[in-house]
Amino acid sequence: MGLEAVIPPGELIELGGALRKDVAGYDLKSLLVGSEGTLGIVTAAWLKLLPAPEAAYPIMAAFPDTAGGCEAIETVLGLGLDVAAVEYLDPMTLRHAGGSLPWGRPPGPAFAVIAEVDGAEATARQNRDELLNAWAESSLWIEATLDRREIEALWRWRDGVSLAVNSYRGGKISEDIVVPLDRLRDAIEGTLAIGAAHDLPACSWGHAGDGNLHSTFMIDPADHGQVQTAERAAEDLFRLAVELGGSLSGEHGLGLVKAGQLRRQWTPAAVRMHEEIKRAFDPKGLMNPGKKCA
Amino acid sequence: MGLEAVIPPGELIELGGALRKDVAGYDLKSLLVGSEGTLGIVTAAWLKLLPAPEAAYPIMAAFPDTAGGCEAIETVLGLGLDVAAVEYLDPMTLRHAGGSLPWGRPPGPAFAVIAEVDGAEATARQNRDELLNAWAESSLWIEATLDRREIEALWRWRDGVSLAVNSYRGGKISEDIVVPLDRLRDAIEGTLAIGAAHDLPACSWGHAGDGNLHSTFMIDPADHGQVQTAERAAEDLFRLAVELGGSLSGEHGLGLVKAGQLRRQWTPAAVRMHEEIKRAFDPKGLMNPGKKCA
Repeated sequence: MGLEAVIPPGELIELGGALRKDVAGYDLKSLLVGSEGTLGIVTAAWLKLLPAPEAAYPIMAAFPDTAGGCEAIETVLGLGLDVAAVEYLDPMTLRHAGGSLPWGRPPGPAFAVIAEVDGAEATARQNRDELLNAWAESSLWIEATLDRREIEALWRWRDGVSLAVNSYRGGKISEDIVVPLDRLRDAIEGTLAIGAAHDLPACSWGHAGDGNLHSTFMIDPADHGQVQTAERAAEDLFRLAVELGGSLSGEHGLGLVKAGQLRRQWTPAAVRMHEEIKRAFDPKGLMNPGKKCA
Repeated sequence: MGLEAVIPPGELIELGGALRKDVAGYDLKSLLVGSEGTLGIVTAAWLKLLPAPEAAYPIMAAFPDTAGGCEAIETVLGLGLDVAAVEYLDPMTLRHAGGSLPWGRPPGPAFAVIAEVDGAEATARQNRDELLNAWAESSLWIEATLDRREIEALWRWRDGVSLAVNSYRGGKISEDIVVPLDRLRDAIEGTLAIGAAHDLPACSWGHAGDGNLHSTFMIDPADHGQVQTAERAAEDLFRLAVELGGSLSGEHGLGLVKAGQLRRQWTPAAVRMHEEIKRAFDPKGLMNPGKKCA
């Protein structure tokens, strides 16, 4: 809801605060959020907290392939259910990470989706029933535990997916592209095609409900050739994201690794405004130099 | 979720789109939202729609005075209920507008609060019960209709409050200040004190749940002296909003009327960035000139 920040050459600004609405000035608060320290240093923040939901129930299901899994994801969103999370793991990710699932690996190669519904107990139960119904026919395997410890174990497992994938070759290059929801399947299959074209094992998982993929190429980090190949594959991935009407980053930002890539996604006029805003805040280029440049 | 806009000297930019997440560049989309046409002209927008709630039930209650009414508002928010709206009318507003309420005017002078709960039928009913319980003892009068036509009539009446107040003297100067929720009572009582100091009848109503007041001084618009006095009263009101840790505007923006007032609220460094951003987008000052300047 609000930020206090120090901007060059060392001046304090305060934007918003304990206010639920504020349209007096331009929205500098949102401009600073996600600016990765390149415009100023945030020194305090006002947050709006929501009460924790009374109940939260995840359902994990496996579908025969990416096409089937993406259809299941569209079904969830098409129902208009207020889902708290919709996560996916493509078949290759599930192969690497599935062994440590609380219920063991689903049978055969499969595309996995986890959706969590939450809210008041009655609403969460009702939405859980609707979701189970919607997936009953198309899924190969389904787990919808109500046990709190199993639910915690599921999300702990989900947190470790990245590490499990990493262990295959010792390293990876993983990018968090975003696409419109109806292009998710194209992005998942496109990730595999790019991997194949560069002779790198590839996979993806991520926040399906947001159209946000963690598209990953697995490498031996000690093998300089593999690292370079994966960097070329990542370039192809950025091109794919933009072709599908998406963005280079859903969560991680540009940083150093994607510095200079924004011009793939934005028109020259927008890139120019990006640079002029940087210059207006930080004319000497002192703030987190080299990061998040267009 | 996304904007297409034309910025000077006539270039197209597209920010976001059919994307639920996007942190690639600085958040220029939010910068343009609320910029009142001073940075560019928005030519298209991508919106995220939510399904309409299954049920929505308003409860209107009257409390003996502003102190009691503000306590009732804090009770609603303190319960952690997910309320869709919390509106208030101070006693003077209710005096002018209350006669056309669907159920007639509540007895005696009173401070009115309307809270609406919505969601799935079961959840909305449960929250309605909680709210009725919470207000049962402190309220003088309470209406919690379930009848759809009465509910529509209530909100239609609420939409006309501004016109009802206007009819008292033929005109008004009304400002939409915002304060932290725990200062709402100070802002409501402060509005009356400012009116009294300038010998103008005053009142306020607004979006209590957001700490957003429509603080109003009633005038005869043909009386030049009254108009000038009300403008001085509005200056006092802006000072009060800032003193209470608030903002000059919750919804309406700065426009022409509040042009130049932002420096009351922002530090010089923030005001400087406001002006530099305007200059970066519109170096010749062609876009909606004179509006929303700091």
